[in-house]
Amino acid sequence: MVSIASKFLAKKNVVLSDIDAEEKLLSSKDKSVDKLRTLALAEKLAAYQDLLYAQKKHKILVILQGMDTSGKDGTVRAVFGQINPLGARCYCFKAPTAIESAHDYLWRVHQQVPALGEIAIFNRSHYEDVLITRVHQWISAAEVPQRFAHINAFEKMLAETGTTIFKFFLHISKSEQKERLEERIADPNKHWKFDANDLKEREYWDDYQVAYQEAIEATNTEYAPWFIIPANSKTQRNLTIASILEEQIALMGLAYPPGNPDIKKLVVK
Amino acid sequence: MVSIASKFLAKKNVVLSDIDAEEKLLSSKDKSVDKLRTLALAEKLAAYQDLLYAQKKHKILVILQGMDTSGKDGTVRAVFGQINPLGARCYCFKAPTAIESAHDYLWRVHQQVPALGEIAIFNRSHYEDVLITRVHQWISAAEVPQRFAHINAFEKMLAETGTTIFKFFLHISKSEQKERLEERIADPNKHWKFDANDLKEREYWDDYQVAYQEAIEATNTEYAPWFIIPANSKTQRNLTIASILEEQIALMGLAYPPGNPDIKKLVVK
Repeated sequence: MVSIASKFLAKKNVVLSDIDAEEKLLSSKDKSVDKLRTLALAEKLAAYQDLLYAQKKHKILVILQGMDTSGKDGTVRAVFGQINPLGARCYCFKAPTAIESAHDYLWRVHQQVPALGEIAIFNRSHYEDVLITRVHQWISAAEVPQRFAHINAFEKMLAETGTTIFKFFLHISKSEQKERLEERIADPNKHWKFDANDLKEREYWDDYQVAYQEAIEATNTEYAPWFIIPANSKTQRNLTIASILEEQIALMGLAYPPGNPDIKKLVVK
Repeated sequence: MVSIASKFLAKKNVVLSDIDAEEKLLSSKDKSVDKLRTLALAEKLAAYQDLLYAQKKHKILVILQGMDTSGKDGTVRAVFGQINPLGARCYCFKAPTAIESAHDYLWRVHQQVPALGEIAIFNRSHYEDVLITRVHQWISAAEVPQRFAHINAFEKMLAETGTTIFKFFLHISKSEQKERLEERIADPNKHWKFDANDLKEREYWDDYQVAYQEAIEATNTEYAPWFIIPANSKTQRNLTIASILEEQIALMGLAYPPGNPDIKKLVVK
């Protein structure tokens, strides 16, 4: 049987514009059923996280990347919403601070990687350092392949020291982004999420698509694969990511550590 | 003219036992003169550090490695003793804590790398993770070359993002270590520096020499070179390290940033 993960794994020489952001591969055709399926998967992920935390043998890193409004926050809520914060940590990478900028760009990222027993979720990540920095030419052309090599070496080291890495690109269409931005503008309750800068960044849409495509191509490795998630439908986006994670984490053979016979003999007086 | 640095740079296929730990290449034959020369160099380093801090264009990482009693603390005092702690930071890597061990072995190291304008001095470092861990077989044979590759990739990334790296191996002989340990045992004022474990580690002397030799060989790169410092004489050790650093940092072209003409026009009322 073909795994769910393999259906969404970025192919070699990926062309983003060839991938339909509307695609609903896992859909049951009933939105409320799909939402319930996602919730059930999220609860399974929470159970796995409990084993992960007890066993302290694995580390899981989930990286979420995508254009503005592509649904990174919503994914965290829907897919990881059932998880115990004891062993899961979401980290949002914003524009670097002065102290962060004074160090190499992987410095702040390395500090947030998961420990044994932890799931770390990166909302944006070191990939911004080959995306926005590239689109706005804050780095030179020569630095781009150099950074791809740094990132691959960094992720390889994490993988070889026990980290399982999942990278998700939330793929939306340009027209879907337009609708979502218009929604944010129309609804005062969404104004806190609106940043006038998003409209400026939207003008660079094509440059971003190229930068994403090349970054995904260059860093899509066996030890840190990229999944491309059609994300025009929020329900399908959540269902797809939850399905891939549930399927792949189930394969890790998580289990509670064996009981201790000496503890069993103890009598509480 | 041959640079001082090139005389101490680790050669390809380095054989530690062929290098005389008693060697005094830079000696004036007068110990008190050599001590004064070292002090003058240390003062020059302090002046460079001031420029480095003002300019905020470079980062300098100095790594000190060597067998127990080889003089890492003494080097920090003699060579960096004149430096303003504002822009210089010494970090001693001890046995990892539980939280550190739960992460990859480069995690705690990356956190301590220098920012722009800083000099960071590592007293021991990530090299312990291919030395003591290897001698005691806490890591498998397959992990050793894997870690050499991680370390090279990590140091390359640091170098490509603006860090100048100097790695010093303080080379003492086995008989010199014996004398120094005996001194520590004989002098109650040195007991705080004595660890009974050092005697146990001394039994692995040959294994450590092999581990050092192979680590130096595998990680002696253009972007992060190893210098082998004959260190049986403390005076010569300090003079050599101070000379190499002074010579190499002088080549970096440090300077105060240009004055601001607008500031010059200001009148203080």
